[in-house]
Amino acid sequence: MRVAELSRRSGVSVPSIKYYLREGLLPAGERTGPNQASYGDEHVRRLGLVRALIDVGGLSVAATRDVLTAVDSPDVRLHDALGAAQAGVTPAPEERTDDAGVRAQRTLDDLVTRRGWRVSPDNPARRTVVDVLATYESLGEPELAAAIDLYAEAVEAIAAHEVAVVLAFGERERVLEGAVVGTVLGDTLLAALRRLAQEDASSRQLGALPGWDDPAREVPVRDLG
Amino acid sequence: MRVAELSRRSGVSVPSIKYYLREGLLPAGERTGPNQASYGDEHVRRLGLVRALIDVGGLSVAATRDVLTAVDSPDVRLHDALGAAQAGVTPAPEERTDDAGVRAQRTLDDLVTRRGWRVSPDNPARRTVVDVLATYESLGEPELAAAIDLYAEAVEAIAAHEVAVVLAFGERERVLEGAVVGTVLGDTLLAALRRLAQEDASSRQLGALPGWDDPAREVPVRDLG
Repeated sequence: MRVAELSRRSGVSVPSIKYYLREGLLPAGERTGPNQASYGDEHVRRLGLVRALIDVGGLSVAATRDVLTAVDSPDVRLHDALGAAQAGVTPAPEERTDDAGVRAQRTLDDLVTRRGWRVSPDNPARRTVVDVLATYESLGEPELAAAIDLYAEAVEAIAAHEVAVVLAFGERERVLEGAVVGTVLGDTLLAALRRLAQEDASSRQLGALPGWDDPAREVPVRDLG
Repeated sequence: MRVAELSRRSGVSVPSIKYYLREGLLPAGERTGPNQASYGDEHVRRLGLVRALIDVGGLSVAATRDVLTAVDSPDVRLHDALGAAQAGVTPAPEERTDDAGVRAQRTLDDLVTRRGWRVSPDNPARRTVVDVLATYESLGEPELAAAIDLYAEAVEAIAAHEVAVVLAFGERERVLEGAVVGTVLGDTLLAALRRLAQEDASSRQLGALPGWDDPAREVPVRDLG
């Protein structure tokens, strides 16, 4: 198909398609003339993935290119390509070497051992966990980190299901695409559902207090026990 | 204390402090001379919160200001202020009115009814859930949405615990600060732990296949059943 039809079928404007071609997010079409190229279904599919990563996942063009490079490299084993795709969609912070960072590192190591997780020492998500735990501590709110076991238990059940769903896609490219989409959109979905559940919890826990809906009244939240 | 000491105690540079003052992220200090002001412990604490939101939470300066405005308004009831703080840290997408959006809306409404969640019709996280579900469908990967009940169950347990922890902080300002920090950093923590759990799940599920670590071999993932 020509670029106009590719635009119609994908819902992406022609200028955007040309931009993605220049930036290497979309492979070139098959040359059919000095100023013409022909595109296939794989281009429609790839444009859907690009837009999902950018619009819904909030990735930059550069991050999107990194992720797609991992998806497209046939010479890495599937498990490592999944890791590369994950790392591409998740910018990791600098390693923390301060005292709070060292303590947070120990908390994470203990968690991984306790749960028997097989995770590589250089999974960049380790640095993120350490950074958040250390930040809770330096903000004087270590209580917030107490949920880590509850979080770990929750994500374990979720991840086992998600990985099985994605592996069942069969072909390598579809598995990787599914992993990328599921990783990025899954973050967003999980975060949004957590907001709804928090509103529900706030409504139940605050709603149990007398006078809770009077703005002028300082709610005696300590009474919640 | 003077601005130099505020910088030393908070770990934030003097130019950054002046920038936050200009942008309204930090309340002005008490004037002590034509070009001098004095700052207190509340400024140290507020700077910690600002840096956590920007550096760890990834919020823009404008989004940070919106969140702090909700934290600082005494004339809204606590439950609504919690909602405003949440909304501030979560940019919501446009409402989807296409067919996929309508179907996704129904899926969410059913979920909320099924779980008995008390959530307001205008919680912006609803739009986010709908957007993700509709995107899964338009990408031809509705299987990924099948995890929604698993997600909902997981976040319910997490949210009940989190809200109780934050309400136990007692004072309104501390409750709201805790909610903001816990919402933003909790997203990051949950996402990072999910990555680690996914690596573990991929390792277990792919590791069970013969020849899984040979890059040249197309892994027969369908055999996983």
